[in-house]
Amino acid sequence: MKVVDINCDMGESFGAYKIGSDDEMMKHITSANIACGYHAGDPMVMDRTVKMAAESGVNVGAHPGYPDLMGFGRRVMYLSPEEIENYTLYQIGALWSFCKAHKTDMRHVKPHGAISNLSWTDEGVGRALARGIARFSRELPVFSIPGVPMATAAEELGLRVIHEVYPERGYNADGTLQSRKMPGSSIHDPKVAVDRALKMVREGIVIAWTGEAVKVSAQTICIHGDNPVAPQIASALTAALKAEGVEIKPI
Amino acid sequence: MKVVDINCDMGESFGAYKIGSDDEMMKHITSANIACGYHAGDPMVMDRTVKMAAESGVNVGAHPGYPDLMGFGRRVMYLSPEEIENYTLYQIGALWSFCKAHKTDMRHVKPHGAISNLSWTDEGVGRALARGIARFSRELPVFSIPGVPMATAAEELGLRVIHEVYPERGYNADGTLQSRKMPGSSIHDPKVAVDRALKMVREGIVIAWTGEAVKVSAQTICIHGDNPVAPQIASALTAALKAEGVEIKPI
Amino acid sequence: MKVVDINCDMGESFGAYKIGSDDEMMKHITSANIACGYHAGDPMVMDRTVKMAAESGVNVGAHPGYPDLMGFGRRVMYLSPEEIENYTLYQIGALWSFCKAHKTDMRHVKPHGAISNLSWTDEGVGRALARGIARFSRELPVFSIPGVPMATAAEELGLRVIHEVYPERGYNADGTLQSRKMPGSSIHDPKVAVDRALKMVREGIVIAWTGEAVKVSAQTICIHGDNPVAPQIASALTAALKAEGVEIKPI
Amino acid sequence: MKVVDINCDMGESFGAYKIGSDDEMMKHITSANIACGYHAGDPMVMDRTVKMAAESGVNVGAHPGYPDLMGFGRRVMYLSPEEIENYTLYQIGALWSFCKAHKTDMRHVKPHGAISNLSWTDEGVGRALARGIARFSRELPVFSIPGVPMATAAEELGLRVIHEVYPERGYNADGTLQSRKMPGSSIHDPKVAVDRALKMVREGIVIAWTGEAVKVSAQTICIHGDNPVAPQIASALTAALKAEGVEIKPI
Repeated sequence: MKVVDINCDMGESFGAYKIGSDDEMMKHITSANIACGYHAGDPMVMDRTVKMAAESGVNVGAHPGYPDLMGFGRRVMYLSPEEIENYTLYQIGALWSFCKAHKTDMRHVKPHGAISNLSWTDEGVGRALARGIARFSRELPVFSIPGVPMATAAEELGLRVIHEVYPERGYNADGTLQSRKMPGSSIHDPKVAVDRALKMVREGIVIAWTGEAVKVSAQTICIHGDNPVAPQIASALTAALKAEGVEIKPI
Repeated sequence: MKVVDINCDMGESFGAYKIGSDDEMMKHITSANIACGYHAGDPMVMDRTVKMAAESGVNVGAHPGYPDLMGFGRRVMYLSPEEIENYTLYQIGALWSFCKAHKTDMRHVKPHGAISNLSWTDEGVGRALARGIARFSRELPVFSIPGVPMATAAEELGLRVIHEVYPERGYNADGTLQSRKMPGSSIHDPKVAVDRALKMVREGIVIAWTGEAVKVSAQTICIHGDNPVAPQIASALTAALKAEGVEIKPI
Repeated sequence: MKVVDINCDMGESFGAYKIGSDDEMMKHITSANIACGYHAGDPMVMDRTVKMAAESGVNVGAHPGYPDLMGFGRRVMYLSPEEIENYTLYQIGALWSFCKAHKTDMRHVKPHGAISNLSWTDEGVGRALARGIARFSRELPVFSIPGVPMATAAEELGLRVIHEVYPERGYNADGTLQSRKMPGSSIHDPKVAVDRALKMVREGIVIAWTGEAVKVSAQTICIHGDNPVAPQIASALTAALKAEGVEIKPI
Repeated sequence: MKVVDINCDMGESFGAYKIGSDDEMMKHITSANIACGYHAGDPMVMDRTVKMAAESGVNVGAHPGYPDLMGFGRRVMYLSPEEIENYTLYQIGALWSFCKAHKTDMRHVKPHGAISNLSWTDEGVGRALARGIARFSRELPVFSIPGVPMATAAEELGLRVIHEVYPERGYNADGTLQSRKMPGSSIHDPKVAVDRALKMVREGIVIAWTGEAVKVSAQTICIHGDNPVAPQIASALTAALKAEGVEIKPI
C-alpha cells in the first residue's frame, strides 16, 4: 500500500497581517512548514500555529527564509555561506522553542522561497543550507526534490531527504518549478491539481508545461497555502488519495 | 570559602556595528548573557559569541529584550503578557540553537534593559517573563535581584533565582538601580567599583547614592560591557576577589 | 450649506500582506491618511496609494505611527520628545517624496494608533508630535478632536486643527474613544454608523456608550478601513449626507 | 584655477551603535552623503547629521541603500526596477524632511554600497536608480564615475553627473573599484592616499593595482568614513590641495 505525506506552508501571518487559511488547511495536511520570523511569522503566530499543529496531530517542520519581510523571502540576497548557516540555525532554534513549549517534536525542515529555489541550482547555497540544518541536528529530515545541490549536500551530511512534489505548480522539463512570473504557473482548478497529484503518486510522472513527461518521486505533496483554492485542493486530494487506497500519514 | 560568579552582557554587536569589548571581557567572566537578535545581536554575532564562550569555559545564558533594535531594548513597550511570553520563548530558542551547534548548554537567562527593569516593579510583566522562561525549561536559572516581581514569579514556577549585584551602577535606597539618566549612575573608577563589589560579597552591603547602607545578596556580579572601563574593572575585580580568598566560578 | 470631509486610513498593506480595501474606499472618501512605512506601509504601497489618491482627486495626508510593524503601531512605546519629533519628520518626508513624484500636494497629517491616542492625554507626547509636524511645515493641517494636548500644541505652533469625528467607534462620556478592547467599541452596522454620523454633522452630538450626549465638532468624518463593512458605511454615508444637502469635499 | 569637492559618507550610526567619526570628518569635507535609514542611519542620527552639516556649511546629499541594516547595504538583493525606484524615492524624501527642518537644501544623491556597485554594471539597476532620483527632482546631481550605466541613465534623464574619484581605494584597470575582499583594496597610509588624490586632480590619472595608468575625472573626491585613518587623510588632503592652489568647495 502506498503512503504519502501532505505538507503546507503555515504560520506566515505577521502581527495584524493575515496570510493563508491555516485553520482550514490544518484539517487536511499531515506536515506543517512553519515560518520562523524572518521572511514571515512572528512569535505570536508561531505559538498559535505550533499549538494548532500539535493538537491536530500534524507534524511540525521549520520553514526558514531570507531576513526580508518586505519581500516575503522571495527576493534573492547574496549571503555568505556562514550567513546562510547561521540564519538557518537561528530560525530553526526559534521555532524549536515553541515545539518544546507545546511538547511536540520538530520533524523536518523545508527552506522557503528564493533561498530554496537558489539552493536547487547553486552548490554553495545548497551546501550552506544543509550545513545549517545539520549543525542543529542530523535527525531532521529535509523536504526537497531529489538530486538538486541542497538535497545532495544534505545526504552527504547524513540528513534524510524526503522527496517532494508540487501538483498545483507548473513544472519545467528538467523537473524544476515553472517561474511564478509565468502565467499558468500556479494551478487554480482543484480537479486538475488532484489529477496531477494522483499521477505523481501512482506513476511518478508529471507533465511539464512544455509537454514532456517528467519523472518525480512523491513522498510528500506540497500544497501552497497562498493558492486561493488551497483548502479545496487539499480536501479533494485527501478524498481522491483515500479512494485510491493511498494512506496519508506524516513521514 | 565564598564563591561568586561574574557575568557580563555579550554579543550586542549587530552587522557592521560593534559594541562592547567581548574578546577582552570573555577572559574575566564566568557567565555571558548573550543577546538574541531582538534588542541587539544577529546570528553571526551569536554564533561567534557562543563559540568564544564555549571555548573559554564561560557559561552561556540568554539575554532577551524588547524587539526594538533602534532603541537597544531600553525603551518600554506596552506588550501583552502573551507577547512577552512568546517573544521570550523565541529569543531563548534562537540562542539555544547556537548552544546546540557548539555542543554547550544554556545555563541561565537574564532579561535585558527596559523589560528587565519593568519586571522588577510590574507584576504582570514579571510573571509573563518568568512564564516565558519556564515554558522553555524549568531547569534554567534566572539572574535577578531577589524579591522583585519577576524573581518571585520565577520561584513560584520552580525556577532557581541567582541573586545579582551591580557594583559599577548606583543604587537607590530601596535596592533598585539608579536611573541611567542621573549623573554618576554609572561608576567609571575601577577602584571604586572593585571596593563596592568586595563590600557586596563580604558584607552583603552597598551604599546607595543617597547614603543608606542597602542589603544585597551577591551570587553573581554584573559588569556592564558598555562601561568604557569594563575590562579594567573586571580584571581588577578578579584579582581582588582572589586575594580575598573568594572563588570565582560559574553557578 | 454644511460641508464635511470624509477620511480613511490607507496604504497599510506591507509587502505580500494586504490590509484594508483601499481600491473600494478610495471611491467614497475625500481625504486619505497614508501610512509611511513605520507602523505599516512600504514604498511600493505608498507609491500605489498616492497615485490612486491623486488620480481620484482625493487629498493625501501623512499617517505617521510608532516604528513597530509587528504591533501595527498599536502598542505604546516610551519615546523621548526628540525621538517623536524626528520619527514624525522622517515619515512625513518619506511620504512627501511620493506626493512630489505624483505631482500632488500633501494636505494634512493624522497620527496613527497608540501614539495618536497617547497624544490626546499626554502633554509631552502631544507637543512633540505637533512640533514634528510644524518643523516640516506650518501649512500642514492636523486631524484631531479639539482640545486635546496634541491639538492645543498644534494650534500654539500655528497649525490648523481640523476637527474629526468617528461615527463607527464608541465614545466615552469625555469625548475620547472607547477602548478597542471593549466589546461594541467598533460599530459594524452601517445604518447605525450612518445615523451617528448624521447626528454628529447636523447636531454636533454623539451618544456615548454610557448614554450621555457628548458634544463633537465634525469637520472631517473618519471611517476605519479595518472595519470589515467600511466600504458599505462609506457608501451609505455619502448617499445620506448628500440627501441631507451636506456637501462632501476635502478641507 | 582647479576646483574640487571632497565628500564623505556620514550619518551611518544607528541607535546605540556608532560608526564613523562624523564630528571630525565634517571639518574637512564640503559634501556629506547622509544615510537615510535603510542600510544605516535613523531619524535621530539624520537630524543630528543634517544639522551639523548645515552649521558647518557642508552640502547635504542623500545616500540611499538596500533595506538591509543587518548587511549594511553591502549585499546584493534582487529587486525589481519599481522597487529600486520607490525605495530610492522613500529614502530621499525621508532625508529631505530634515533638510527642510534645518532650512538647508539637498544638493546631491550618492547611492550606497552594493546597489551602487551593481548600478555601475547592470543597466536595469542603473536606470531604476536614476529614475528614482529623477522622479524626486531633476535638479539633484548624482555622484558617480562617468560612463557607467547609472551615470548614462542619469544624463539621459537630464540629471547632472558629478565625476567622483576614490584615492584611498584600489582601482581595477577598467576604472572600477577593486573588491573590498582583496587585500590592499583600502589604503590606510594617508601619504599614499594624498599622493593618489593629487595625481587624480592634477593629471586625471590613477594607477590600478595591476599597474596600468587609468584615466579618471576628479570633480569630487570621496573619502570613506570607515577607513580608520579617514580624518588624517582628509586633513592632509585638504592641506596638500590648498598648497597646490586647488580650491576646495562644494559643487
